[in-house]
Amino acid sequence: MSFDLILFGGTGDLAWRKLMPALFQAFRHGSLPKDGRIVGVARDDLSDAQYRALIKSRFDEVELAKRPSEEEFARFADLLFYLRMDLSSPADYPRLAAKLQEHTADTVVMYLATAPGLFTTFCEQIAVAGLNGPQMRVVLEKPLGHDLASNRTINESVRKVFSERQIFRIDHYLGKPSVQNLFALRFGNALFEPLWRRETIANIQITIAEELGIEKRGAFYDSTGALRDMVQNHALQLLCAIGMEPPINAHADAIRDEKLKVLRSLKAWTPETLRQHVVRGQYSAGTIDGLPASAYRQENGVSEGSPTETFVALRTEIANWRWAGVPFYIRTGKRLAARSAYIEVNFRPAPHAIFKSPLGAANRLVIHLQPKDGLELHLLAQGQDNRQNRQQTSQTLAPVQLDLDFDKRFGAERVGAYERLLLDVIDGRLNLFVRSDEQEEAWRWVEPILESWKNDSEGPRPYAAGTWGPSASSAMIARDGYCWTEEC
Amino acid sequence: MSFDLILFGGTGDLAWRKLMPALFQAFRHGSLPKDGRIVGVARDDLSDAQYRALIKSRFDEVELAKRPSEEEFARFADLLFYLRMDLSSPADYPRLAAKLQEHTADTVVMYLATAPGLFTTFCEQIAVAGLNGPQMRVVLEKPLGHDLASNRTINESVRKVFSERQIFRIDHYLGKPSVQNLFALRFGNALFEPLWRRETIANIQITIAEELGIEKRGAFYDSTGALRDMVQNHALQLLCAIGMEPPINAHADAIRDEKLKVLRSLKAWTPETLRQHVVRGQYSAGTIDGLPASAYRQENGVSEGSPTETFVALRTEIANWRWAGVPFYIRTGKRLAARSAYIEVNFRPAPHAIFKSPLGAANRLVIHLQPKDGLELHLLAQGQDNRQNRQQTSQTLAPVQLDLDFDKRFGAERVGAYERLLLDVIDGRLNLFVRSDEQEEAWRWVEPILESWKNDSEGPRPYAAGTWGPSASSAMIARDGYCWTEEC
Repeated sequence: MSFDLILFGGTGDLAWRKLMPALFQAFRHGSLPKDGRIVGVARDDLSDAQYRALIKSRFDEVELAKRPSEEEFARFADLLFYLRMDLSSPADYPRLAAKLQEHTADTVVMYLATAPGLFTTFCEQIAVAGLNGPQMRVVLEKPLGHDLASNRTINESVRKVFSERQIFRIDHYLGKPSVQNLFALRFGNALFEPLWRRETIANIQITIAEELGIEKRGAFYDSTGALRDMVQNHALQLLCAIGMEPPINAHADAIRDEKLKVLRSLKAWTPETLRQHVVRGQYSAGTIDGLPASAYRQENGVSEGSPTETFVALRTEIANWRWAGVPFYIRTGKRLAARSAYIEVNFRPAPHAIFKSPLGAANRLVIHLQPKDGLELHLLAQGQDNRQNRQQTSQTLAPVQLDLDFDKRFGAERVGAYERLLLDVIDGRLNLFVRSDEQEEAWRWVEPILESWKNDSEGPRPYAAGTWGPSASSAMIARDGYCWTEEC
Repeated sequence: MSFDLILFGGTGDLAWRKLMPALFQAFRHGSLPKDGRIVGVARDDLSDAQYRALIKSRFDEVELAKRPSEEEFARFADLLFYLRMDLSSPADYPRLAAKLQEHTADTVVMYLATAPGLFTTFCEQIAVAGLNGPQMRVVLEKPLGHDLASNRTINESVRKVFSERQIFRIDHYLGKPSVQNLFALRFGNALFEPLWRRETIANIQITIAEELGIEKRGAFYDSTGALRDMVQNHALQLLCAIGMEPPINAHADAIRDEKLKVLRSLKAWTPETLRQHVVRGQYSAGTIDGLPASAYRQENGVSEGSPTETFVALRTEIANWRWAGVPFYIRTGKRLAARSAYIEVNFRPAPHAIFKSPLGAANRLVIHLQPKDGLELHLLAQGQDNRQNRQQTSQTLAPVQLDLDFDKRFGAERVGAYERLLLDVIDGRLNLFVRSDEQEEAWRWVEPILESWKNDSEGPRPYAAGTWGPSASSAMIARDGYCWTEEC
């Protein structure tokens, strides 16, 4: 099998921070097909040799399990090529066609790690140049639009040129081992499915917390915000993975059909739920890791008095037989107290308590996505350490934890998210990619929130950098009698 | 609170191997009430000082988490006293009464670590001496009889003198942390109960395997055998703990009522099930830990051509709504391949497989009783280590394990089985002790097996010392399509 991977945005941030390291890991693991090319595309005037040298120098700045030796990098560099091209210029497309003709490939992957504004022109010109044959695959990075209408426009222009099975909308959260393991746990084990329902589960919490601020992406972030940047895609995809019914098989459309059903089952917003079940926040000055951190509105590229949210917490429900009445909480934000992403499944307490339990103790399954991949199952066992209090020891429960660290079990050199997803594109596996109807349904659900914010003059609630967001987030969950992990 | 603990058989094997070390641990842990005496009783002519010296010298031979210092032992020895007495001699009982009058105790525990043949005389004479007041508690060690009739006789003579709430029939397996945790797990957590039934569980296996042979107990063992020594009590108690319905509360009678229901629900034996579902074995010469081990019939105290079983494997069912059709397997034996006691709950495979699983892989919960106390939950996760086979990695499952080591969690100086049970007697907690009706019901169920063996001229099947018993044991479980752990 042979492939070409054409990387548009070949000198960009994503290319050197994520994609090239992932391709290198795949190469090192022997997972890349032998007969292949990786062609970086950008507007700079570079030779192949210069491009290879550039990648090499940038490897020093990124996280790699092990530095490549000169010799190892040289073998990898043999796969690297460069094409100067301006995607917005129709005149440049014949040169892309020529580049592709140099090498006969079973599969040609076109990875658009570029500004989404170029997607429409790109698709038109690809069609004109006749580069949309069946061996072509196109990878689209988020954001695909900033609302339902713009998302539809992009999807329509792409689907005019490519069929759905050629389109790989990437959500790198789906490539994380713990998310794939969520599917494996739920549908490969007989233990969880009988518990995975309203009768047993009290609530589910999805937290994607970042310590980082907006770094150098001020202008982009200010026109986007946390809801579009994290909730519409990553958080909702996690919610789908947790909430979906068992698919009929493990093929892409079977899985995506079920995820779509979850999105369609999300409770519709009302003026009241928009007010009570959505909290938006924006960080003010604070402290991160003992160092002063400035307010969002002081960051470069952020407009004065910006109303953009850097934090969202919300509560929703999946209105179906399995989940009716079970709250799903989502929260995500920048400049929070920790870098930590996890899903917490909180089970109801035992219905009839014959032992004494620590206050509020109940079973919990935590799926950690960041900073480590792993599982924790929190149980109650017989307390043994309270010897003085003899009358109680055999009747009092104490929390215990069953742990599974995926790194320890499968080795730290595991297949990373981008590596997994890039190999899936090359191999044509769509399971972990998002279908257009899912994306549109997610936008449809998010839009009323965006609308309500437009009409809300109060703006986002401030929270000090380095905290867990505005107190309204805690108040929201407390109204149901629950609490976020760090408050319980 | 004050107590006297009168230890009949005070110079016997059980006293110095188990009971004195357990009492010392309780003393060390500060769990023994301050105002107390431990009075060893035997026929030897010893002073208190000699008895203390004897215990001290024997402490050197037993397992203790930490050796006591001179000073620590001296403080413990202050509790130790000795009484010379022959339990079979009515003339000696007034001296017991006199000894008890020396010290006013809220609770008097009389621990019968003696031959069961003495129980009836003991009870009669205790009544004559008026030593069965409400502050008295009596602890009975197994064996309590060798069949239903003799068990009834003993229970009746004890109950003529003591009320049921004064009688503590000890089964030290119930004192093991993992068994108490089985109750805690099942009834203190919401996770297990929904899974704990025929719809989810394929079969349950109880293994109590010993590497040791019969040591110096040849004559006793030869008239007892594995069924009476291990199955009628320990194994059936474990089966009850696994199989019982949730009790209405954690009080002794609520728990014992439910255990009794399990024993009454055990499928009645038929000539066919006695033939097909019970395997008796006897070890022949073999190898243990690389050293030659002699055959059972060559051991001291064993009669020539003895038909006594040193191994039993059997299959039964609990005939009720929860468990109908789920096989429960029990096996126990001497001179097996390992010292290992555990309960294995084997779950059914996921009903609809969308991923590829390793052959025969399914979920399993293992409760380890020996040599360590712990839990293992075996799950299937996404396989990650099969990189070359790219097409399969994300669709193939691999086994993973969630572990809980009670020693690690609660410290190796945890409350041991005898320590737990002795404290329970002193405190009057009957939860972990066996009621007479349970004991009788267990004998009732075991009797048809004993009867069938009497009439079976074939005798026990031989197995080489150091193996897992006769091959008929594997054949029995294989007929259901299952296998013992080490064969799977």
